[in-house]
Amino acid sequence: MRTKRAPVIDGLQYANWSGKIFRQMREGGVDAVHVTISYHENFRETVLNIEQWNRWFEQYPDLIFHGRWASDVDVAIDSNRTAIFFGFQNPAPIEDDIGLVEIVHTLGARFMQLTYNNQSLLATGCYEENDPGVTRMGKQVIKEMNRVGLVVDMSHSAEHSTLQAIEISERPIAITHANPQNWHPALRNKSDTVLKALAESGGMLGFSFYPHHLAGKTECTLQSFCEMAARTAELMGINQIGIGSDLCQDQPDSVVEWMRVGRWSKEIDYGEGTADKPGFPPQPAWFTDNRSFPGLRKGLLDAGFNEDDADKVLGLNWLKFFAENFDKQA
Amino acid sequence: MRTKRAPVIDGLQYANWSGKIFRQMREGGVDAVHVTISYHENFRETVLNIEQWNRWFEQYPDLIFHGRWASDVDVAIDSNRTAIFFGFQNPAPIEDDIGLVEIVHTLGARFMQLTYNNQSLLATGCYEENDPGVTRMGKQVIKEMNRVGLVVDMSHSAEHSTLQAIEISERPIAITHANPQNWHPALRNKSDTVLKALAESGGMLGFSFYPHHLAGKTECTLQSFCEMAARTAELMGINQIGIGSDLCQDQPDSVVEWMRVGRWSKEIDYGEGTADKPGFPPQPAWFTDNRSFPGLRKGLLDAGFNEDDADKVLGLNWLKFFAENFDKQA
Repeated sequence: MRTKRAPVIDGLQYANWSGKIFRQMREGGVDAVHVTISYHENFRETVLNIEQWNRWFEQYPDLIFHGRWASDVDVAIDSNRTAIFFGFQNPAPIEDDIGLVEIVHTLGARFMQLTYNNQSLLATGCYEENDPGVTRMGKQVIKEMNRVGLVVDMSHSAEHSTLQAIEISERPIAITHANPQNWHPALRNKSDTVLKALAESGGMLGFSFYPHHLAGKTECTLQSFCEMAARTAELMGINQIGIGSDLCQDQPDSVVEWMRVGRWSKEIDYGEGTADKPGFPPQPAWFTDNRSFPGLRKGLLDAGFNEDDADKVLGLNWLKFFAENFDKQA
Repeated sequence: MRTKRAPVIDGLQYANWSGKIFRQMREGGVDAVHVTISYHENFRETVLNIEQWNRWFEQYPDLIFHGRWASDVDVAIDSNRTAIFFGFQNPAPIEDDIGLVEIVHTLGARFMQLTYNNQSLLATGCYEENDPGVTRMGKQVIKEMNRVGLVVDMSHSAEHSTLQAIEISERPIAITHANPQNWHPALRNKSDTVLKALAESGGMLGFSFYPHHLAGKTECTLQSFCEMAARTAELMGINQIGIGSDLCQDQPDSVVEWMRVGRWSKEIDYGEGTADKPGFPPQPAWFTDNRSFPGLRKGLLDAGFNEDDADKVLGLNWLKFFAENFDKQA
């Protein structure tokens, strides 16, 4: 029986981090955030990004600290700070070296996507034409991720690869930031088939507020979003859903270009954008930064969630998932 | 008041690791070993060495595990295993990047030499002609090592640099593997001036059994060694001395060449060896592998150490040093 208040946990952000944003996390009552620290960065470059985080932890000790375990969420609550958990949106940081899975876990990584839109060494991304599924190395890496407690994240993966990863992984996987295709049919959103398989395996879906994943995009209403969340709770169960806002606050458009193109193409790929709108799209008015969480709670209650279920969606489900999936396999 | 038996701790080894050697650690009752995992390896190469250790931890879970904190020495005692603590004999793993100090500590590094025989970015090695002392970067790195709990090791450093490091470091430093020059005047051994300054600052000397550091080299007797230890206890105090055997068991001679030459010279440098004896020298008969520790205890007792003091030299002093110096600065 939990004695502390329920936490607020965001299952994915990739902001242009600053003291301002860390203060907004506190203002919004956000106890833990899974932050992306790598897209196309190789191992050494990812370590440089961790070094930058270590500097922020030194510079803002009253606002944030490095979260490693589920228990750190309670440390965050007790100390009025936000626990920052690391993750990768691509397996680039482990290069072609399975030994790096344990190394990055030791350095704090807790989520790793097997793919980011494209084919990787491990699986197929959601923008590829063909989806041959989890590769030979992918199977080995999933096993190693299971062993050390690095969560498989299939947010940017293709359908067949995702279903295979759910099947192959001995521990539940996550789709940290995506929405149902039945609400908004984007390539990045997920089919009912995937969502059901995810839920049945004990996995988690984090709802995204990235406009390209929202019905009506920037104009999406809080009501429409929360009604979708309620329908998804019926589809997946109330215990398998959370938030993964995909908040990219204060990022210059050069960053979305890096996310989409990295070093893999000399030509621009617009991803979810278009040639005439290549940048980050404007956020919906009801989710602009970490201070939007209290309003989100109100929206969920208005859509029919009771207080306990709103607690689950806003953090308790992620907390349970963290507790069961971040440590070494028993 | 300690309730468990006193531990046996070796303050430095660099063997050609194998199941055989790990079993000998158990046979010799060795509870913890500080192992060298890098000489000239850069960061990425050092990580590969850690990956190899992770494989050994998986392969030999009943014999060894990764030691991170002083409390792991008691875990070792309770589980009949040997705790393996990582260290570097050169600052090569942090390259020119002070941010890597915290990264390597997170990965388990607990000792780092500021130099290995040569001038480094941080200080001067004991084989250089001139010894200008701790560098600008060296001062910054010592401060960062103090902050995170990475012990400054000056075993292979020159005298002036060593005295400066003792002075600059806010936490005690170590000379993990060397002997007094007053017993055997090797360049790698330490002057009374250094040993006294080390002891007064709360630092530790680990006695080496590497033949080039021994009076009489391979022919050195256990009695001569133990009498030297007794005299050093008088010079430094009984609480500042331990063992750092420098055991290089089963290494091919190509390894001593790597240790001496790395990639810094196209010409062979024989270090403590000579052109006609370029390889590893034979060990003295009384210290050939980890099974020699019980005999060493007997030698210390025969030389006049009482049981309590033998316990201190064989492990309790290192344990106290680990407890005070491996964690983040309060």
